[in-house]
Amino acid sequence: MTDAVRVRYAYLGPSGTFTEAALRTVPDVEHAELLPCASVPAALEAVRSGEADGAVVPIENSVEGGVPVTLDELADGRLVITREILLRVSFALMARPGTHLEDCKRITTHPHAAAQTRHWVADHLPRAEVMLASSTAAAAAAVAEPGSEFDAAIAPRIAAEQYHLNVLADQIEDNRDAVTRFVLATRPVPPPPLTGADKTSLVAFIRDDHPGALLEILDEFAVRGVNLTRIESRPTGDGIGRYCFSIDCEGHVEEARVGEALMGLRRVCGEVRFLGSYPRADGARISTRPGTSDVDFRDAASWLASLKEGRT
Amino acid sequence: MTDAVRVRYAYLGPSGTFTEAALRTVPDVEHAELLPCASVPAALEAVRSGEADGAVVPIENSVEGGVPVTLDELADGRLVITREILLRVSFALMARPGTHLEDCKRITTHPHAAAQTRHWVADHLPRAEVMLASSTAAAAAAVAEPGSEFDAAIAPRIAAEQYHLNVLADQIEDNRDAVTRFVLATRPVPPPPLTGADKTSLVAFIRDDHPGALLEILDEFAVRGVNLTRIESRPTGDGIGRYCFSIDCEGHVEEARVGEALMGLRRVCGEVRFLGSYPRADGARISTRPGTSDVDFRDAASWLASLKEGRT
Amino acid sequence: MTDAVRVRYAYLGPSGTFTEAALRTVPDVEHAELLPCASVPAALEAVRSGEADGAVVPIENSVEGGVPVTLDELADGRLVITREILLRVSFALMARPGTHLEDCKRITTHPHAAAQTRHWVADHLPRAEVMLASSTAAAAAAVAEPGSEFDAAIAPRIAAEQYHLNVLADQIEDNRDAVTRFVLATRPVPPPPLTGADKTSLVAFIRDDHPGALLEILDEFAVRGVNLTRIESRPTGDGIGRYCFSIDCEGHVEEARVGEALMGLRRVCGEVRFLGSYPRADGARISTRPGTSDVDFRDAASWLASLKEGRT
Amino acid sequence: MTDAVRVRYAYLGPSGTFTEAALRTVPDVEHAELLPCASVPAALEAVRSGEADGAVVPIENSVEGGVPVTLDELADGRLVITREILLRVSFALMARPGTHLEDCKRITTHPHAAAQTRHWVADHLPRAEVMLASSTAAAAAAVAEPGSEFDAAIAPRIAAEQYHLNVLADQIEDNRDAVTRFVLATRPVPPPPLTGADKTSLVAFIRDDHPGALLEILDEFAVRGVNLTRIESRPTGDGIGRYCFSIDCEGHVEEARVGEALMGLRRVCGEVRFLGSYPRADGARISTRPGTSDVDFRDAASWLASLKEGRT
Repeated sequence: MTDAVRVRYAYLGPSGTFTEAALRTVPDVEHAELLPCASVPAALEAVRSGEADGAVVPIENSVEGGVPVTLDELADGRLVITREILLRVSFALMARPGTHLEDCKRITTHPHAAAQTRHWVADHLPRAEVMLASSTAAAAAAVAEPGSEFDAAIAPRIAAEQYHLNVLADQIEDNRDAVTRFVLATRPVPPPPLTGADKTSLVAFIRDDHPGALLEILDEFAVRGVNLTRIESRPTGDGIGRYCFSIDCEGHVEEARVGEALMGLRRVCGEVRFLGSYPRADGARISTRPGTSDVDFRDAASWLASLKEGRT
Repeated sequence: MTDAVRVRYAYLGPSGTFTEAALRTVPDVEHAELLPCASVPAALEAVRSGEADGAVVPIENSVEGGVPVTLDELADGRLVITREILLRVSFALMARPGTHLEDCKRITTHPHAAAQTRHWVADHLPRAEVMLASSTAAAAAAVAEPGSEFDAAIAPRIAAEQYHLNVLADQIEDNRDAVTRFVLATRPVPPPPLTGADKTSLVAFIRDDHPGALLEILDEFAVRGVNLTRIESRPTGDGIGRYCFSIDCEGHVEEARVGEALMGLRRVCGEVRFLGSYPRADGARISTRPGTSDVDFRDAASWLASLKEGRT
Repeated sequence: MTDAVRVRYAYLGPSGTFTEAALRTVPDVEHAELLPCASVPAALEAVRSGEADGAVVPIENSVEGGVPVTLDELADGRLVITREILLRVSFALMARPGTHLEDCKRITTHPHAAAQTRHWVADHLPRAEVMLASSTAAAAAAVAEPGSEFDAAIAPRIAAEQYHLNVLADQIEDNRDAVTRFVLATRPVPPPPLTGADKTSLVAFIRDDHPGALLEILDEFAVRGVNLTRIESRPTGDGIGRYCFSIDCEGHVEEARVGEALMGLRRVCGEVRFLGSYPRADGARISTRPGTSDVDFRDAASWLASLKEGRT
Repeated sequence: MTDAVRVRYAYLGPSGTFTEAALRTVPDVEHAELLPCASVPAALEAVRSGEADGAVVPIENSVEGGVPVTLDELADGRLVITREILLRVSFALMARPGTHLEDCKRITTHPHAAAQTRHWVADHLPRAEVMLASSTAAAAAAVAEPGSEFDAAIAPRIAAEQYHLNVLADQIEDNRDAVTRFVLATRPVPPPPLTGADKTSLVAFIRDDHPGALLEILDEFAVRGVNLTRIESRPTGDGIGRYCFSIDCEGHVEEARVGEALMGLRRVCGEVRFLGSYPRADGARISTRPGTSDVDFRDAASWLASLKEGRT
């Protein structure tokens, strides 16, 4: 494979973060060129501009919720999700050799890592001060510097090796089941083929804000038996009380019930941004209601055609 | 026009009833052959068998409600409605010459006419006995017979002329706004063209009777902005508590929102019998919700196609 | 028991009809005085006026549907239902001794009986004419008269004994599972005690006819987990397209979920007429959804009170 | 007023942040003792422990959305919201005297401020690196230190005076309409009196995750005509796909429609945490639907009582 055709993946860097670990699960990634970026917007912009072929960014965490910057950047459109990746999240407290747990007075980490270890820190280092860093890798790097102002970093365990730090405490995350969900975003392409265990993501903007607008949106899904797996209101930026809805639903745009629900949204919403259909990372089969399979939709369409021709 | 091709219309007879008056409003009826029938089933069977080209039967009255025999016969299928006719209903009390109002002790009429004049009779002839006849025309005919056991008939005014009776009291209907709705039923044909002021009739049978089944049916209409003008539960004949729903909605099967609602019903119901799309007799324009016009449906379909091709 | 305090029951007569059979199932009816009436309105008026203590009238048939005159008279208010009675319906063809089946050219019966035997008559007596009578008992009486114009009557088998007629064919009803439901109506009294297998009847009038009004009514029940067992649109008499809804639901007005649903209807409807809570004739237990028992309602009320007092 | 009874307010510090500005709008705050805290959890814990009487914390931003840590801490219960405060958000770029805009290579600020100025920074200082600080005040303080590693801070303009910095650019927020909403949380007390322009906040936890659970929750509000002003799904921490819903609705718990909706939620949800009823900061009157006023609820309750007593 020549360099000219090597796939390039942008990701939320630096090297040594969970996002890189997520990217490493993409097939054939070992032949790709990896492009760490300073921020989610930078990683996604690299795809939009053509500098990269895809970008892996965190979109949701089972403890912290949606990642606002990712949701908002994707809502801007011009990109689609073609894959999702789930990764269990675990943190370690790490320090320069010679530092003991009781010495840790100034700790640095990324805000999300701080949030996910706040009970552990309150219990074990009640007097420690937690300073924020741009990433957990940056936090580990800062601690590794000679004469650092920080005593320890909270970061994924792999950062300890990379920066030659000692692990003082492992698995210090407050929630052992914490999972982060990442997505691979690309420039618009036809969705990957239907697998029967797929998800579809979109953003719906209310037309003329009115009571009941959210109910209308949910009805478009419910009446066609399409289940939602995530719904999150996001401010549109036009003032307190103005929202759009970031939604994941079960199924693939090539399935009739999902396609009809999307068309229904298109008709009742001010705007709908389609963010892609892709296989579920958990592989869970989709539960469907009687009367909502593609066969049922095809049968109904034939029946309607026959009515119009006078055959009842 | 040769006899061989003369159109034949069956109707609920005998001659001189409201149904004949309704039939007389059908275009070109003066060139048609009229076939009075003894009952609604007989009139409709004449169409099914090919003996007649169409049948006019009463389907609903603004005072008495739906006409069960018509609803049930149409629910059997094999016929479609191609026209509706509205007729104001008015009754007269009529007797042989020489009979005075105070002489009327035994009155005869059709059950529906009895129901629609019961307050007038209670007020003006409190001691009179009302005997049932098969039709108002039959009632008038029975009174006209010499030596009749009846003193008077309640019938449409035109029956007085036909049977040489005197009108003792006119417009004796309890409700001056009473209207009867008739339909012209034919063997299945493509629906008449869309006029923009149309109605669609159907019968929906619940699949596996369950709480919420009716809500499901209504949701299929509501989510596509299709308004109902009539809904009536009818027993399926399988025991108390087992119903189907006889429904009229605004719009034409050729309109996308109606077509999609019908397909939705087809998918969630055990069975749906389409009874036709036809112009509204009152010519009232249909109120539609934003996002439910044919243009909106076409736009949504193009958009969905573009998503599937990777153009978002 | 002195005559002064004997209970008096009105019913749709004459003697020998199904309604009398239904009345005979009421406890202690053998000590009561029975008052046959010429019509449903007459029977109910006897109760309103104080002439009778209760009236038994047919309200619904599993083949023919609701009995319009009963539904409309009860919707007028001033009466409540305190009991329901279910009766299997069966008809016989009966004639004077000496008449054979093949002699039956003119048959008489009540319109409902005609409707429920129409297939049998079409199959076995295709050329017979069916003339309407005020009741099946009146039909049998008319046939029994010497020199009657009728050859046979369709009536309940017991009428044959009463009028000394021969049964030419028994169980000629088209539907062997046909059941008629009767109600016992009284002047307003507190509902009979909760049994756990109760029904509540009411009539709801839409406020300002608007699309979605029926959905609103159904939602008031659905959101509190109250199942409907019957819903029937009835014209209000104010023109085609103006309806009220005659509704039976599971449960008793003393149950919190039913009470709250009724109050909800009272708030969203133009008018609600309560027709009573009473034990179900079929004794079927009511299926309820979690969170809708009286205990759940009481718990929620205590919780709300605690919130208002600042205890969360 | 003696010191012993001085009110103490905790807030997200340090001094000089927007949160302090929000706190300054509380009546009689000039007589209160202010307690800056290092984090939202610390400020709220000061109230729970009794160290403070109330805490002001940011809950929502019109650009960034909900503040997860605040939503999650409040969802823990044991506190109620008694007041909301809206504050327009504006940022300045500030540096030590002598620093010019083109010198700014390392900028520090709080993550939210970074997010809200990211387009301005990308346009005007495309090569600058943005380092995160615990608060905008901490960022300003860090820049003010002699020999600071940072060239400039992004902070509210008032921080420039406090730390003797020069404002290099003012109003650099990307969205001029950005507003932050703060709440005053206290230990549970009865809600402040009804004003007619109130809001109620709560968190609803689904019982047994199932499709349609969110629709059920929305229906409890919709059927009683209660409008939502905010709904946000939050992970419960039990894995991807497990959510609770943080909800603000119009109206006050003392209003019947809100109280009944809350009781409905209590019955259908696994758990409901009431977070308080309080006056709307924008003073906007509440739009209500006919049939949902307290008078309508009282009328319905009287009517129900009369039905139970046999007066219909």
